[in-house]
Amino acid sequence: MIHIRTATPADISLMYSLVHALAKYEREPESVHITEEQLLRDGFGPNPYYECLIAEKDGTPAGFALYFPIYSTWQGPSLHLEDLFVQPEFRGHGIGKALLQAVAAAAVKRGCARLQWDVLDWNQPAIDFYQSIGATMLGDWRRMRMTGDAIKALAASSEVTA
Amino acid sequence: MIHIRTATPADISLMYSLVHALAKYEREPESVHITEEQLLRDGFGPNPYYECLIAEKDGTPAGFALYFPIYSTWQGPSLHLEDLFVQPEFRGHGIGKALLQAVAAAAVKRGCARLQWDVLDWNQPAIDFYQSIGATMLGDWRRMRMTGDAIKALAASSEVTA
Repeated sequence: MIHIRTATPADISLMYSLVHALAKYEREPESVHITEEQLLRDGFGPNPYYECLIAEKDGTPAGFALYFPIYSTWQGPSLHLEDLFVQPEFRGHGIGKALLQAVAAAAVKRGCARLQWDVLDWNQPAIDFYQSIGATMLGDWRRMRMTGDAIKALAASSEVTA
Repeated sequence: MIHIRTATPADISLMYSLVHALAKYEREPESVHITEEQLLRDGFGPNPYYECLIAEKDGTPAGFALYFPIYSTWQGPSLHLEDLFVQPEFRGHGIGKALLQAVAAAAVKRGCARLQWDVLDWNQPAIDFYQSIGATMLGDWRRMRMTGDAIKALAASSEVTA
């Protein structure tokens, strides 16, 4: 029995452990710098940065999906799925698909024209799965990222008029 | 003289034309389905989906940057730069860099650990420029996207408990 429910503040420790499990799966276990306090503040305050769904199988937490609104200047309000993860011992039961269905339902409810997420190019089973449920891969886009000191160095000489 | 300023509702027609000019540059001129009314409602209502900066050179609009908050479960609140564009006749004067500096300043102001954006893999001049100012390319991530009817089909069988 698979059950998808909206996360509550009582799920923060669970979400924190799932975030870490996903990072380990993505081969970057040392990249998680977030704290439980920050996850709580950012997801359950007056202006939440994200929404989270928890999947349970027979009453046991099995995975999660975390998403937030984004914007397309071609199509308008959209959703970005930041994290989708099912614990290895719970795979093969349709839990990932049930989570994606729930995120798609959230997108429909908000009138979003697009739902998007990122996948590692070596994760062919995931790519195959996503394509089987109607997603397409945008092969020619690459992600650029700037962090910490590089952002500050670039910002230092900025002048903006309100 | 380059001048970066925050966009206002009076800039909607300009923003609309810049969005179209960027889509043409990205070789997808037919992909823009947004209207000026929607851009106005989504960017300047009580809960704006995006923020926009306009670049002017000697008083003439030359480009724009459009961004919004996102969330990293590894690092917390971040910014995504959705659109960055300088009209071809205004290139080579540092306008793109001035816009990026202003977006970086917005990221610093909000305490964002990350600033990210996407680039087309054939746009080597842009990639070179971004790397020269401290950005790195995440070569192993690919974007998955689902739109319209595919989202609805996937959502149809969803069951979520609040």
